[in-house]
Amino acid sequence: MKLTQLLSHVDHTLLSTTSTTQDYAKLCEEGLIHNVASVCIPPSRVKFCAQYLQGRVKVCTVVGFPNGYSNSYIKAIEATDAINNGASEIDMVIDIGRAKEHDYSAVLADIQQVRRATIGHTLKVIIETAVLTTQEKIDLCQVVSESGADYIKTSTGFAANGATFDDVVLLRKHVATEVKVKAAGGISTLDDALQFIQLGADRLGTSRIVKIIQGMDGTGY
Amino acid sequence: MKLTQLLSHVDHTLLSTTSTTQDYAKLCEEGLIHNVASVCIPPSRVKFCAQYLQGRVKVCTVVGFPNGYSNSYIKAIEATDAINNGASEIDMVIDIGRAKEHDYSAVLADIQQVRRATIGHTLKVIIETAVLTTQEKIDLCQVVSESGADYIKTSTGFAANGATFDDVVLLRKHVATEVKVKAAGGISTLDDALQFIQLGADRLGTSRIVKIIQGMDGTGY
Repeated sequence: MKLTQLLSHVDHTLLSTTSTTQDYAKLCEEGLIHNVASVCIPPSRVKFCAQYLQGRVKVCTVVGFPNGYSNSYIKAIEATDAINNGASEIDMVIDIGRAKEHDYSAVLADIQQVRRATIGHTLKVIIETAVLTTQEKIDLCQVVSESGADYIKTSTGFAANGATFDDVVLLRKHVATEVKVKAAGGISTLDDALQFIQLGADRLGTSRIVKIIQGMDGTGY
Repeated sequence: MKLTQLLSHVDHTLLSTTSTTQDYAKLCEEGLIHNVASVCIPPSRVKFCAQYLQGRVKVCTVVGFPNGYSNSYIKAIEATDAINNGASEIDMVIDIGRAKEHDYSAVLADIQQVRRATIGHTLKVIIETAVLTTQEKIDLCQVVSESGADYIKTSTGFAANGATFDDVVLLRKHVATEVKVKAAGGISTLDDALQFIQLGADRLGTSRIVKIIQGMDGTGY
């Protein structure tokens, strides 16, 4: 796989709480240079990034993030607000506590409410694999498939750990064919990035891949 | 200070992403037995806890939590929704990135929008001391004082560290007299809890104090 192909799968991500306008301008500039799939940034920075990018790179933002325990009604309004501000991709977090108590109808209803607010846009559903059992991950593959979401996503990046190869294989195996997989959290080498893609991930949430490629002489890989 | 007095300063807190209905029922039960200031729980559990407690203990919830980078408009709607569901105390997180770029007018406007949505209820403003310089903490004391909020609160509990004695002294010194201080994050012993109160904290966000007291024979301290 060529680097340009790899970059087309990258959501170039900056979601730390302390990042500033200058940091987001730099992220957007990098996103433009490397023609990434999107820049993934906080809701309060959507307007700025959308204006900066003028549609040349997509803007992705997060909803109910990172803890997932805001009400569905609020998640849906957040998604609508983000779209109005220029986002075209929404990464929402499920209500993890409801998943842990296996109240999957509540988890489904929560996703569906955000799905209705994001018709015509890309919806990714973060299940936070780090805190789930294998059976819960499999059950959530079914819930996400049923919800009409576009992607199932492994991680917020704020849990104890992020995407693993095993999880990407598991999710790819158990979600419906039309649902794509996004691996996120801790993806820090080109080898790992390529491996995630080969195992079935269609998107990678990471800030480090662009940084690594910027540090190369352009001839490698 | 008597234990009952100490407990009247405690927001008995459960904000982990994986907690279940059963955990919140237990938290409410403990809150009732120990007559705490409030139970502090996620937005998606406000209705349940308010119905469980029937006004016998206050319900506190969180807004823009824990990362603080949702839009003011969303934070205000979250607060209104929480109050409609039975919450009477709202702990909001500031837009930390705006504070780091010293755009204090944006931080003030953000708090004021939530203040307008919470008139007649208690508003606490989390500044996340762990990621701030001393000067930023002092500047934010002024912003919070100007905002009309009831409390300045040290921490979300999701940053690298929580409340410190030094920070409580600093905040108490620099906020307006009528603004109270809430210490939160990592408060894990009775000695520390008492020390925080003596240094000027009016509220403590912790789950451990109630657990410690439950483990005692009732005669100590």
